[in-house]
Amino acid sequence: MTDSTSGQGPLTGIVVLDLTRVLAGPYCTMLLADLGARVIKIEPKTGDDSRQYGPWVNGRSAYFMSLNRGKESIALDLKNDSDRAVFEALLPQADVLVENYRPGTMTKLGYGWETLKERFPRLIYAASSGFGQTGPYARRPAYDLVVQGMGGIMSLTGHPGGPPTRVGTSVGDITAGLFTAIGINAALVERSRTGKGQMVDVAMLDCQLAILENAVARYFATGKAPAPTGARHPAIAPFEPFATSDGHVVIAAGNDALFRRACETLGMPELADDPMFATNDARFENVLALKARFEALLQGQTTDHWLALLEEAGIPCGPLNDVAQALNMEQTKARNMVVDIAGEEAGGLRTAGNPIKLSGHADPDFRGRAPDLDADRERILQALNLPTGQA
Amino acid sequence: MTDSTSGQGPLTGIVVLDLTRVLAGPYCTMLLADLGARVIKIEPKTGDDSRQYGPWVNGRSAYFMSLNRGKESIALDLKNDSDRAVFEALLPQADVLVENYRPGTMTKLGYGWETLKERFPRLIYAASSGFGQTGPYARRPAYDLVVQGMGGIMSLTGHPGGPPTRVGTSVGDITAGLFTAIGINAALVERSRTGKGQMVDVAMLDCQLAILENAVARYFATGKAPAPTGARHPAIAPFEPFATSDGHVVIAAGNDALFRRACETLGMPELADDPMFATNDARFENVLALKARFEALLQGQTTDHWLALLEEAGIPCGPLNDVAQALNMEQTKARNMVVDIAGEEAGGLRTAGNPIKLSGHADPDFRGRAPDLDADRERILQALNLPTGQA
Repeated sequence: MTDSTSGQGPLTGIVVLDLTRVLAGPYCTMLLADLGARVIKIEPKTGDDSRQYGPWVNGRSAYFMSLNRGKESIALDLKNDSDRAVFEALLPQADVLVENYRPGTMTKLGYGWETLKERFPRLIYAASSGFGQTGPYARRPAYDLVVQGMGGIMSLTGHPGGPPTRVGTSVGDITAGLFTAIGINAALVERSRTGKGQMVDVAMLDCQLAILENAVARYFATGKAPAPTGARHPAIAPFEPFATSDGHVVIAAGNDALFRRACETLGMPELADDPMFATNDARFENVLALKARFEALLQGQTTDHWLALLEEAGIPCGPLNDVAQALNMEQTKARNMVVDIAGEEAGGLRTAGNPIKLSGHADPDFRGRAPDLDADRERILQALNLPTGQA
Repeated sequence: MTDSTSGQGPLTGIVVLDLTRVLAGPYCTMLLADLGARVIKIEPKTGDDSRQYGPWVNGRSAYFMSLNRGKESIALDLKNDSDRAVFEALLPQADVLVENYRPGTMTKLGYGWETLKERFPRLIYAASSGFGQTGPYARRPAYDLVVQGMGGIMSLTGHPGGPPTRVGTSVGDITAGLFTAIGINAALVERSRTGKGQMVDVAMLDCQLAILENAVARYFATGKAPAPTGARHPAIAPFEPFATSDGHVVIAAGNDALFRRACETLGMPELADDPMFATNDARFENVLALKARFEALLQGQTTDHWLALLEEAGIPCGPLNDVAQALNMEQTKARNMVVDIAGEEAGGLRTAGNPIKLSGHADPDFRGRAPDLDADRERILQALNLPTGQA
């Protein structure tokens, strides 16, 4: 634990053995560390692959650093006897083990759930994988782009008739990390009642299906696969970005009263009485004509100009921010959603904060730094009363 | 509870008062119900707005039904004295209260956290809102499209120079639902140790920032906002969809060995020795030339043809499925990721399953149906020893 905020949170006292690499697993255990758990990252001797991914800050991977803040590191080769002895000494102290190997790997190492559950009945064993522990695809390799493509979200993203479009962030991994964190916490709740652990099995593909939202209902209700809708809401208008003189403004006027107020605010009240636009159904049928009318006006002034007017009138609206703009918003700062990394201030490494704000705990504006490979070996071995010489 | 699977799971015995509407909140409480909690949905007399959203199955909103499966419903007007008496009788039995009103609304009703924490110190009070309970934007209205635009994910999604592109599913709401569920479960873990509840405050905007992933590291490392990358990985090649004769195949050959194996499998082994493509850096620099070479070949045969070859060789790959194809995969069926709704089989209402698979609990292939408005009033009032006449 590398700073005073680690170990503070609702999961204080929970010990997590973290055998995960790259993204879905480390994202999950980052959430657990943010919530106060002690996360011991067990890396191969060559380190988590993502230590080699750019961009670089202070000679270290900013990618790795942002996903592994507040964790400890020990390098263990689980095929080596003396390292296995260390792992064996850690296991009885663990509340949770998280791994994101391909199914079967932990069993080959002698540490599959079927073995560990007999030895450590209180242990919660969480496995995050591409396709899950079961089914015909269980042993296949997966990456974010594979499950985004397979799970349907790419078929809903992009413009009709346009090229395939990926969601611009790795939602295939990240949603798996989120669902795994929910499963682990729920298993901890149950253990507090029963004293028993269990296995949590989360597949990236399954998570993509679970976030398809109303596309699933639309498919089963109509028998037709929904098409992508570009940047527009699939059923409500106006509910999309409109071009201004220097960018775009999103206007989300979801009912007739809001539409009327938006038209009045923009100085074209006659639009709300026009039969082409008087109801949501009419507006949606004439959505291109509506867009043309709005943009003819909106392109005459800046985004800031229109946002000030619309916000004043209480119309749901907002800019299309790039990442720099999003991270520098006053609201972002007020919510501690950009945090410093302890000890890295000089290098400018900053990362997204924890969006779970809890009344029982401070929401620090910094987080512990990510560990160097094997940085915590000595301290961990000492605490286990194991010899601290090089393994 | 409308079928035998409700109340089975790690959250068995947990009672949730659910004051949420439409999406972020109901998605969160759906997860809690899937995990075994008893979720009592407290609706206004006119019902959750989303009861009016299409598509329609058996005369009911498939949208509402898919988000509110396995919950109970009671209609309460919290400005009406006799309904407030019912709410007052429910509160002492609640472990968790979830609301997604605009900040301030619950306080006006006399049920803000600051009041409830004094009366019910074990209560976990979760609020999911657009911008959170604090900061200059706290009281602003928000919708999914507003926070997608403001939070930066739309700036990463789509093709360079192309029109703005929304993520094709409501990730603004859904990620808020996921983080709120993590916060609630973590607070339950802490309560099992301390006996005390707390407030969980989750903002949709914050959650958008928390899933920006390596875009945050890239921005702080370089000072430049990352651009959208279409359907391609921002740093690895080949890692994108390629056109075939009847669709696309995603190939994710993330290192030199996989690239060589892919080239050999596709019958163009010379590509792996070509200096233009021999290393990932070279491939990424020549990514358009690489794409042209791959597609010149791949467009000669079907997606199924190429997938069979690539899968056999162990190359990470997959199709670009539409929602129908994704929901009908063998793997989807094997994982129970499409579930029936009890009592609705005749109408064909089916919905996405729960991606959290737990060894301690069955993973049913059906879920309880969503309640009609106020359907559980009589039973709830009887259990509270309140008169059951019309309120």
